[in-house]
Amino acid sequence: MSKVKTGIVMLNLGGPANLDEVEPFLLELFADREIIQLPFQHWLGPFIARRRAPKVRGLYDKIGGGSPILRYTRAQGQGMVERLDRLSPDTAPHGFYVAFRYIQPKSEDALRAMAADGVERAVAFTQYPQFSCSTTGSSLNELWRAAERTGLRDAFEWSIIDRWPVHAGFIGAMTDTVREGLAQFDPAVRDQVLLLFSAHSLPLDVIDRGDAYPQEFGASVQAVVERLGRPNPYLLAFQSEVGPVRWLGPSTERVIKRLGARGQQHLLVVPIAFTSDHIETLSELDREYGEVAHRVGISHYKRTPALNDRPGFMDALANIVRDHLAAGRPYSPLYRTRCPGCVNPQCRQILNPVGAAVAAGTS
Amino acid sequence: MSKVKTGIVMLNLGGPANLDEVEPFLLELFADREIIQLPFQHWLGPFIARRRAPKVRGLYDKIGGGSPILRYTRAQGQGMVERLDRLSPDTAPHGFYVAFRYIQPKSEDALRAMAADGVERAVAFTQYPQFSCSTTGSSLNELWRAAERTGLRDAFEWSIIDRWPVHAGFIGAMTDTVREGLAQFDPAVRDQVLLLFSAHSLPLDVIDRGDAYPQEFGASVQAVVERLGRPNPYLLAFQSEVGPVRWLGPSTERVIKRLGARGQQHLLVVPIAFTSDHIETLSELDREYGEVAHRVGISHYKRTPALNDRPGFMDALANIVRDHLAAGRPYSPLYRTRCPGCVNPQCRQILNPVGAAVAAGTS
Repeated sequence: MSKVKTGIVMLNLGGPANLDEVEPFLLELFADREIIQLPFQHWLGPFIARRRAPKVRGLYDKIGGGSPILRYTRAQGQGMVERLDRLSPDTAPHGFYVAFRYIQPKSEDALRAMAADGVERAVAFTQYPQFSCSTTGSSLNELWRAAERTGLRDAFEWSIIDRWPVHAGFIGAMTDTVREGLAQFDPAVRDQVLLLFSAHSLPLDVIDRGDAYPQEFGASVQAVVERLGRPNPYLLAFQSEVGPVRWLGPSTERVIKRLGARGQQHLLVVPIAFTSDHIETLSELDREYGEVAHRVGISHYKRTPALNDRPGFMDALANIVRDHLAAGRPYSPLYRTRCPGCVNPQCRQILNPVGAAVAAGTS
Repeated sequence: MSKVKTGIVMLNLGGPANLDEVEPFLLELFADREIIQLPFQHWLGPFIARRRAPKVRGLYDKIGGGSPILRYTRAQGQGMVERLDRLSPDTAPHGFYVAFRYIQPKSEDALRAMAADGVERAVAFTQYPQFSCSTTGSSLNELWRAAERTGLRDAFEWSIIDRWPVHAGFIGAMTDTVREGLAQFDPAVRDQVLLLFSAHSLPLDVIDRGDAYPQEFGASVQAVVERLGRPNPYLLAFQSEVGPVRWLGPSTERVIKRLGARGQQHLLVVPIAFTSDHIETLSELDREYGEVAHRVGISHYKRTPALNDRPGFMDALANIVRDHLAAGRPYSPLYRTRCPGCVNPQCRQILNPVGAAVAAGTS
């Protein structure tokens, strides 16, 4: 294999590729104190994971037997590096490496593949547009731990793309999906369709620590509705709450119920914090909430298509990396600022940052 | 007095102009179920108000014996209408009318003055940049109730400026205050100053109903930091929690304590949801949290100046109204969309909207 000059690690939560991976995936998820802190977690985490596994297996069974997130991430990565080789010849050839948080391929797999390909310059590229310690933060912490475990601590020179909530390419691609979603409605009612921007929720204790996620979610929504330039009303809501803690609201399911009770007929759900289809879109939004919407009398309930393997999104990913490489900064001005309530000393680290002098100046 | 063609009602919460107005102000505030819902409110509201009154009187005493919000609102209004007469001669002459929510001049005062001036075309202009049912919503509901009480239900043709979180003029004026705030720090450390954007908090039950405030606050912050174009890290926090309910976090006071404990030396607080100085800036941010900051070792704690009577902000106010009048719409696309969890049938009304056919199309 030809030597890769710049390795781009695509960080995401991942999803079980088949039904046998459901329980291991949930066990890893509920063990992660960077996403949810439970009392007696080493006992309660596995308890919740095992109790939920049969139900979740059934959900994956209904969406085709597994999550498509690996397939889409690989397509995105391939499209991204092809474009990057043209956009940024100085840093070519580029390679992409998938690092999921709770399922294979994990950080170790990505790091070992990078070493095998002779990568020296590495970019940790979160696939979550909005930063949260629960998602991007957890993935980065795991990446650095994996570098220690694999003995690859000093193997690469790193920089981080830690957030891109209002990058023009992302907003443009996301706005295109909203336009496609609206095109599914009768032109006579199109202006009355309510846009419901839905993102995964966070436990309130994460919010109270000072997590950046709600601010960046709000900024993404504003950027999309301005780019869209239509009179449609819109609302925000949060989905996927689980476990015995209080979560940030309003809940997507409850909002759908209340909109139905009020007589709202036309609803377009926009999953603005996910870039690939996975169980939260294919099962929770499409099936579960679709049934809720039907029950409460919402006659036209649609979801915008996920970005998945859309060429416009591959353009965006490539442009985000190109802009990052050209800027020469190891991370955004926000990355090194830990949440005010942070209790995790590992947070906001980086190994071997590029341009160490620059890093010292902005930390 | 010469006839006023276009009357602009400036809606805000207001503040006691002298110490004798403190208790009446608090009684009105804690009676408002649109800002806070307490159990046994007709009993607990006055109880909390009377118990807090002596302490709050003391706070007003220390900032000069009263709130400057009326003085600043009048200066803003005067600057706004002078500019509007030049910017929008078709709708001139313009007059401004202050309608505070919890203290004189109230909605009745504004409406009676408008009738006396012969106003026919009226604009309800919230002075809260970001929409919340607790602030703008409550003021508008009270305005319509006051129109009923005064017999002026049919006296004016109305439109509403219900939000302006990312209006370019507002963002530009706010960014200028951040630049001025940063200029107070030694150039050697200026890039390390942490910007703490602080806004009044909301009870979590308001958030769970689906209030627009957190999204619009997030969008305002993003717009300011992008316009600023500097490497300073920033955080968001919420101030002014009161009473026995749970509020949206993180709390500004706790964030300051934690930043101090972590060794942060340079902090600039940006009150992005207030446009005039009042007790939350002059007392809470400057005195109370200033002392907290000093105690926890933050050596340089500053606050950006409020917009107050800055000419750039008067330009922004005039441009917001000019753009609104030119667009000919009775309200923003969001105004008529009640919160999903709304339980107040009065919300999101308008009396005698201009261009009623347009209104029907967008509601």
